[in-house]
Amino acid sequence: MTQRKRVIVIGGGFAGLWCVQRLAKAPVDITLIDRSNHHLFQPLLYQVATAGLAAPSIAAPLRYILRDQRNVTVLMGEVDRIDVTARTVHVGGQALSFDYLLVASGATHAYFGRDQWATHAPGLKTLDDAFLIRRRVLSAFEEAEAAQDSATRDACLTFAVIGAGPTGVELAGTLAEIARHTLAREFRHIDSRRARVLLIEAGPRVLSTFTEGLSEKARAQLVKLGVEVHLGKPVTHIGDGYLEFGGQRVDARNILWAAGVAASPLGKQLVEGTGSPGIDRAGRVRVASDLSLPGHPGIFVAGDLVSIELEGKPVPGVAPAAKQMGNRVADNIRALLAGRPTTAFRYRDFGSLATIGRHSAIVQWPNLRMSGALAWWFWLVLHIYFLIGFRSRLIVLINWAWAYFTYARGARIIINTDSDREIHGSEEEVRGESRGA
Amino acid sequence: MTQRKRVIVIGGGFAGLWCVQRLAKAPVDITLIDRSNHHLFQPLLYQVATAGLAAPSIAAPLRYILRDQRNVTVLMGEVDRIDVTARTVHVGGQALSFDYLLVASGATHAYFGRDQWATHAPGLKTLDDAFLIRRRVLSAFEEAEAAQDSATRDACLTFAVIGAGPTGVELAGTLAEIARHTLAREFRHIDSRRARVLLIEAGPRVLSTFTEGLSEKARAQLVKLGVEVHLGKPVTHIGDGYLEFGGQRVDARNILWAAGVAASPLGKQLVEGTGSPGIDRAGRVRVASDLSLPGHPGIFVAGDLVSIELEGKPVPGVAPAAKQMGNRVADNIRALLAGRPTTAFRYRDFGSLATIGRHSAIVQWPNLRMSGALAWWFWLVLHIYFLIGFRSRLIVLINWAWAYFTYARGARIIINTDSDREIHGSEEEVRGESRGA
Repeated sequence: MTQRKRVIVIGGGFAGLWCVQRLAKAPVDITLIDRSNHHLFQPLLYQVATAGLAAPSIAAPLRYILRDQRNVTVLMGEVDRIDVTARTVHVGGQALSFDYLLVASGATHAYFGRDQWATHAPGLKTLDDAFLIRRRVLSAFEEAEAAQDSATRDACLTFAVIGAGPTGVELAGTLAEIARHTLAREFRHIDSRRARVLLIEAGPRVLSTFTEGLSEKARAQLVKLGVEVHLGKPVTHIGDGYLEFGGQRVDARNILWAAGVAASPLGKQLVEGTGSPGIDRAGRVRVASDLSLPGHPGIFVAGDLVSIELEGKPVPGVAPAAKQMGNRVADNIRALLAGRPTTAFRYRDFGSLATIGRHSAIVQWPNLRMSGALAWWFWLVLHIYFLIGFRSRLIVLINWAWAYFTYARGARIIINTDSDREIHGSEEEVRGESRGA
Repeated sequence: MTQRKRVIVIGGGFAGLWCVQRLAKAPVDITLIDRSNHHLFQPLLYQVATAGLAAPSIAAPLRYILRDQRNVTVLMGEVDRIDVTARTVHVGGQALSFDYLLVASGATHAYFGRDQWATHAPGLKTLDDAFLIRRRVLSAFEEAEAAQDSATRDACLTFAVIGAGPTGVELAGTLAEIARHTLAREFRHIDSRRARVLLIEAGPRVLSTFTEGLSEKARAQLVKLGVEVHLGKPVTHIGDGYLEFGGQRVDARNILWAAGVAASPLGKQLVEGTGSPGIDRAGRVRVASDLSLPGHPGIFVAGDLVSIELEGKPVPGVAPAAKQMGNRVADNIRALLAGRPTTAFRYRDFGSLATIGRHSAIVQWPNLRMSGALAWWFWLVLHIYFLIGFRSRLIVLINWAWAYFTYARGARIIINTDSDREIHGSEEEVRGESRGA
């Protein structure tokens, strides 16, 4: 009996996880490496940031998902380096060798070289980001309630979201809903309904990947929800508590960044010195038609880390594309195992949909275009259906049914960071008697 | 019309919240001050620490709970000082004056002057503590799986819980269940069932407030769940990755502290220079029989911050006692408003119960003593019933029903702290093209 081939998959997102699961019956030993312990259902991440859902509702441990797939070992760790010549992955002081490799480490937010903006305007890619945004948003209303002067109060109640792609639109729409409905009766010194939510976009329209008609409908729905939409106005400066765009300066304590993404730095590291076509401006790896690194059969790239055009159109960075790529890579690994040629990736575009807020969404499918309440229900059903795991789905359903009828949001808990705690820690100085040991 | 009297309540735990709600129809203006934005159902906090429940399941925003009680203003902030002479509370740079005051700022864990132990052995009092413990416990299994040598592996798989009061027993029992059942099939290099869970207690028995018979039954149930119970062995040293007790040294990466509590430092500050009987060894305020600060009518103390003996027995620091005190203070404030004399606090002891682990608990009620599975079901029903808010109750019920049949735990998500992020932040250095602005 020969040794089983070793497969390493980097990244437990949609691309990586779908590839691993598709290889369940293949005669290989798989190692799945991720720096976090969970798979994240990214399309609902904005709900955690806006206190609609608890983190465990949209995340499941990778080990738990894969517990019965005996050919997988899950390793939680940070990949330091990939050596394409020695065919090894360096992680946590070990060098793991592979026969086949999938790099699917995804993307993060980017500030176009303006790193100093990151402190003032956090982006939303991980659960950590979501908790940071949740804490800042909820704290802003608390600070406004306690404020002694109206300038501070107004700044606390001004929310600026930069970038009108899907994430920016979701955040702005939900913030407006929170201010106008969720918190409406809870404060005594402020009227939360007077909060301003600004959505600022450098381009000429919101959700620019949709048709112009749907894009305009989305804009109108945002305005109806109470969002101030500013189009064609690039942000020129972000400082502590204010930003500048389109020649004006606005004081805002909460500035959220949804304007740019960049691929994981592993992409750049992967292509260095391989003589492959390299990476594009966003740091994404240019791959061959079968998703392999050109000149390196058996090494694949998938998901948001990939730059690929099909019939002259770039494949979008969305969950269905990542899943389809993961499946294609798995099938190509099986082909290589069997000595067959690999197959080119084909993207099956089911269409796009984007949610905006309560009863507001747009749907652009090949034979179907919708906006408003019907589109929203369609979006809701689809997203709950695609959530991983029965338990999560049921709990999300109950949470949302509850939120729908009451406007309440179940996860409005401000959790401090360790750094916050250090500030308060000094006061716990009184010592006491034993309760136990 | 005369000005309405001002009531300040410090602390939104059981004592403070129950007092505020009991004053719903009183002609007073109430300010409730808490440093967090939520009321916490502390009896289930260990479930968040052990990944059984998400934080929002056991916490609800104080504003949300009190949104319809128009005579309350909720203020999120840290109290700096109470001035009993000027009758003012200093919070966030303001001095708020009061006619009536309730101080119910609770307790925290204490290390008997061994502050250096805090880093190595975190305690469990807040949601922040729970997240820290959850992250450490889950990470320990991950580190064991990745470990290169058996000494490291064994240390990662050794959990020491110090103090066999209710919290220590719950933590030890649940950790044993996680190791033996929840994670049993998920790792490839380690056998999680071989993890050691030590419960270390200086006194002669576990749950020492119960009868000797029930205490012994609890010990036997712990052993059956797989916990190593060490009684009569005080911990003499805790270092980085090890501890010493009863003359032996054990390498343990996870050490949890459940051995001591101290009252909030506000108690000490309150009595300084008032000429009242002062505080006890645990920093709790000695109060008059009507729960007022002796010599200061209209200033009350309640909950875990109180030291009071009734019929020669100290009132225990449990939720029912705190609720009853909160109600008593509210009624005494109403009496003072009406020019009537205040009434002494009477503690109605419904009995005690403690949970140990799956199918394991003990119940000691006046006419009822139980242990084992029946006691556990009794504990479960009672705790879900007392959870605040219908939605939480339902979601906890579903979570537990799911966990009961599958042994899965729904909240096994490792969330990093900001300080963790700083370590990894440097790698997000590749910048990219715009998706939006």
